[in-house]
Amino acid sequence: MKLQLALDFPSLAPSLHLLGQVREFFDIVEVGTPLILAEGMRAVTALKRAAEGLALVADLKIMDAGDLEARIALDAGADLVTVLALAHEETIQRVIEAARRAGREAMVDLIGVDDPSARLSALTRAGVELVCCHTAFDRQGSGERPTAMLSAVRRAAPAMRIAVAGGIEPRRIRELLPFAPEIVIVGGYVARAPNPHAAAKALREALEEEARPT
Amino acid sequence: MKLQLALDFPSLAPSLHLLGQVREFFDIVEVGTPLILAEGMRAVTALKRAAEGLALVADLKIMDAGDLEARIALDAGADLVTVLALAHEETIQRVIEAARRAGREAMVDLIGVDDPSARLSALTRAGVELVCCHTAFDRQGSGERPTAMLSAVRRAAPAMRIAVAGGIEPRRIRELLPFAPEIVIVGGYVARAPNPHAAAKALREALEEEARPT
Repeated sequence: MKLQLALDFPSLAPSLHLLGQVREFFDIVEVGTPLILAEGMRAVTALKRAAEGLALVADLKIMDAGDLEARIALDAGADLVTVLALAHEETIQRVIEAARRAGREAMVDLIGVDDPSARLSALTRAGVELVCCHTAFDRQGSGERPTAMLSAVRRAAPAMRIAVAGGIEPRRIRELLPFAPEIVIVGGYVARAPNPHAAAKALREALEEEARPT
Repeated sequence: MKLQLALDFPSLAPSLHLLGQVREFFDIVEVGTPLILAEGMRAVTALKRAAEGLALVADLKIMDAGDLEARIALDAGADLVTVLALAHEETIQRVIEAARRAGREAMVDLIGVDDPSARLSALTRAGVELVCCHTAFDRQGSGERPTAMLSAVRRAAPAMRIAVAGGIEPRRIRELLPFAPEIVIVGGYVARAPNPHAAAKALREALEEEARPT
């Protein structure tokens, strides 16, 4: 399992600061949607430089113009771009094709999908290989977590590569394991911690502890 | 009816150039999603200054964190921000509340909604007053236009304020009129015209011609 740090601050300075504190514990850095909205591709360029050796995800959440929007981030150096699972299949396919042409990847974000197994069959037909089981920020306050979606996706698509995001913290890692996610995405738990370094270390340790064969 | 210019270039310089050529014909300028992804709120600030006297829409297409993401653009000076109709109702409500607190507005983009009349009842309950009937860029190539969605929305919500976007050109203005849209959004027809000034003038004339009582 890989650990992805989502940087969702609406400005670059705190993002670079947090990355500096915790980067040793992560495999992937994500330029979050709020950061992209605020700073544009300048944030991708700066974080790509600061996170050398880590893969970089641009969380574009594409919905409208797959090729054009994906290329904006691919040209800026993103290794992976996101598109909404609720987008039209043409859009999803164009994002995947743009990423492939650039030798990179696309991740399809299932945020807002009510019936993941129904959507999964269309996504599989569209050539999707990597999805993100994602509870919206605005739903986390009511305690919603991505585990139910993760379970439904794994049942519907046993071979699908899966990322999981939304309110994840060390004590929840164990319940993710049966569904074999490839990527675990964490944002708030680290960003809002009094000691981000300790929080990131605890996450990495939980991941390695749980992943150890017993 | 108001005319809105969507600036969907992935950089600021051609956007400012086009605005300078055609601004006299428009009421509203939209910082399009590709431009926001590329340049961030810098594009909102620069276009707000260049388009003094016009209202400014930031096409954020919010899906995840309603309050945080809306405030990024409201703080940068946007008069109106967009949220996806496919977002959770909590997210839509938070965008609307953030806009109201700032004395601005939210527009709910129906892009990707398969059954507009079903979604409209939930949106009306959520306090939505302004929606955008929008054909995705990636669907316009197959000839899809927003007229069917516009008609369905007007039937389902006779008092709803409506914007319409997606492949609009002067000869299509007439078919929009029966549904009384408040805002007509145009991008490619003007941006890709050999003579953008003449294209924008033709649009404005079509609007005034058709709106004249006979």
